[in-house]
Amino acid sequence: MLVSVASAVRRGLWIGLVVVEAVAFSCVIAFAQIDPMPSWNDGVVKTSIVEFVARVTAQGGADFVPPAERIAVFDNDGTLWCEQPEYFQALFALDRVRAMAPQHPEWREKEPFRAFLSGDKQALAAQGEKGLIELVEAAHSGMTTDEFARSVTDWLTHAKHPRFNRPYNELVYQPMVELLAYLRASGFKTFIVSGGGVEFMRAWAEKAYGIPPEQVVGSSGVVKFELGADGKPVLMKLAKVEFVDDGPGKPVGINRFIGRRPILAFGNSDGDWQMLQWTMAGQGARFAGIVHHTDDVREYAYDRPSKIGQLDKAWDEAKAKGWTVVDMKQDWKVVFPAQDQLTGQAREAKP
Amino acid sequence: MLVSVASAVRRGLWIGLVVVEAVAFSCVIAFAQIDPMPSWNDGVVKTSIVEFVARVTAQGGADFVPPAERIAVFDNDGTLWCEQPEYFQALFALDRVRAMAPQHPEWREKEPFRAFLSGDKQALAAQGEKGLIELVEAAHSGMTTDEFARSVTDWLTHAKHPRFNRPYNELVYQPMVELLAYLRASGFKTFIVSGGGVEFMRAWAEKAYGIPPEQVVGSSGVVKFELGADGKPVLMKLAKVEFVDDGPGKPVGINRFIGRRPILAFGNSDGDWQMLQWTMAGQGARFAGIVHHTDDVREYAYDRPSKIGQLDKAWDEAKAKGWTVVDMKQDWKVVFPAQDQLTGQAREAKP
Repeated sequence: MLVSVASAVRRGLWIGLVVVEAVAFSCVIAFAQIDPMPSWNDGVVKTSIVEFVARVTAQGGADFVPPAERIAVFDNDGTLWCEQPEYFQALFALDRVRAMAPQHPEWREKEPFRAFLSGDKQALAAQGEKGLIELVEAAHSGMTTDEFARSVTDWLTHAKHPRFNRPYNELVYQPMVELLAYLRASGFKTFIVSGGGVEFMRAWAEKAYGIPPEQVVGSSGVVKFELGADGKPVLMKLAKVEFVDDGPGKPVGINRFIGRRPILAFGNSDGDWQMLQWTMAGQGARFAGIVHHTDDVREYAYDRPSKIGQLDKAWDEAKAKGWTVVDMKQDWKVVFPAQDQLTGQAREAKP
Repeated sequence: MLVSVASAVRRGLWIGLVVVEAVAFSCVIAFAQIDPMPSWNDGVVKTSIVEFVARVTAQGGADFVPPAERIAVFDNDGTLWCEQPEYFQALFALDRVRAMAPQHPEWREKEPFRAFLSGDKQALAAQGEKGLIELVEAAHSGMTTDEFARSVTDWLTHAKHPRFNRPYNELVYQPMVELLAYLRASGFKTFIVSGGGVEFMRAWAEKAYGIPPEQVVGSSGVVKFELGADGKPVLMKLAKVEFVDDGPGKPVGINRFIGRRPILAFGNSDGDWQMLQWTMAGQGARFAGIVHHTDDVREYAYDRPSKIGQLDKAWDEAKAKGWTVVDMKQDWKVVFPAQDQLTGQAREAKP
């Protein structure tokens, strides 16, 4: 390699082109020798991913897909990070209501706030889902979009998971973070398509996954443009749901935000079923993956009867159609990143 | 340059790094010598753009902005392409209703279709805006998203502008196409943020501007996920407005789709006013630009009293705050691309 580069330099004329190609070629060789997904155990699942990527990136091959069309979509809760014992965004909302309580003396007498803040579980349960939604909405409205984003990043600096005793944004799945990076290195554009709140995720997704805000699709509340008292414009978050990016809402969200059908989709629950169907119904090579939570020692084990992340109909279709199902216990060497991996990821995170 | 590269090659060790840097450096030199915006006349407007880009890209400078935050947003109608004598999307819709009429015998007796199809201008005028909206909706609903996209690309292959006698997607502004490419070459990510229909624009924006579907923000109708008769999922377009990306809706759309505040925004009418305000209200270096239509020889001249593309309040604020106002007649060497430029653009268009 060195010799040919040196002689190209002496020839002069084609230096730019030849040298750039030589450098690119060296990178390809280096890449092929280093396992891009070291946290995955060898097996049919890992092979199915690597083979799919090889097929769609093989220039001149029957299944080649131009980089612009290499759209990959990932559910977030239970697919890229942990979702137990409760969706992390719900835990955030409850912590926020506690933190906001001193500014809301009226909550001392108003349900469901009174029941929740005083620890009256019976009264809170009596409020049912409606009460919970009201608590979550209180944490997500009545403030500007900038204030909300700060409340999320503040929460991540001090809140810790009850079982793993780590900040929530450290409970991302290391094998999936590697998969995202591997896809991007292979010319894919990676997107989150999640039932979670889009503004909640954007506050930390870039650092955790290398996915920039504009590639995060999620549920949203109504936002209103206003001129503040100082004449400066703000966007106020209202207590009104605008779009639920879950179930059949996922292909709708993909159409609305991305405007192109993905060629790869990964989920973990029936909320991802239609997104997987929509992805697989396109022309050409396609990949559908499901993370099956089978590891109650390192994480959690749940599927068909679970309240959170129920995996039932999508699993049946995966079996019938031969989609790739990741067995967390068997296919993943590690689940969560070690401390030094977190640092490396944050440094590498690129839009 | 060649000598130092050759000696670096002989030293061997740092070849990759040094050579890549040398090549990159040559590119920078070449870039600086070639005018990236040859269709702009020299003057304060062109200078304001070039100086802004230089400031935010100068590593170590006070106004440096990391590439991930170099978000640039552009209105479409009247900013990137012509919007006279009527919004092109409205002309598309009317052509579509004519083309769809044989499949809709019931339209012969039903207003506003009867009036429009029979050329009964008086009866159509009596229907007012409601009638026009009904015609536009008919062309935008009752079909799948894929079928709609095909109807747009089909239309572009045969429909021609009544004055310029060219396909509508050739009536993009060559100086703005150059600006978009210049910004991307300077590390910006370019977005459309338009009151136009998002699915209408996505059908041709990538080829015309080099802006991929996922970077097009626009108005939208409700779309529904369904399983077709063959069990294949489709997205059906319903006759119901979902989101109007105009006026105060533009900062809302930017928040929803992009999730980051732009540092550069370009518009041409009061529909872009809040987007410009929102962009300028952020921290650090900012750029707001307005295309003023002053050229009724090469294009059209209109501003304050215009029904389409009214420019009044945003113009006043531009004058008061020193935003950049492009005088089309004075600042642009050409308006529309020549045939050979179109070919070049299509070839270069990259996501």
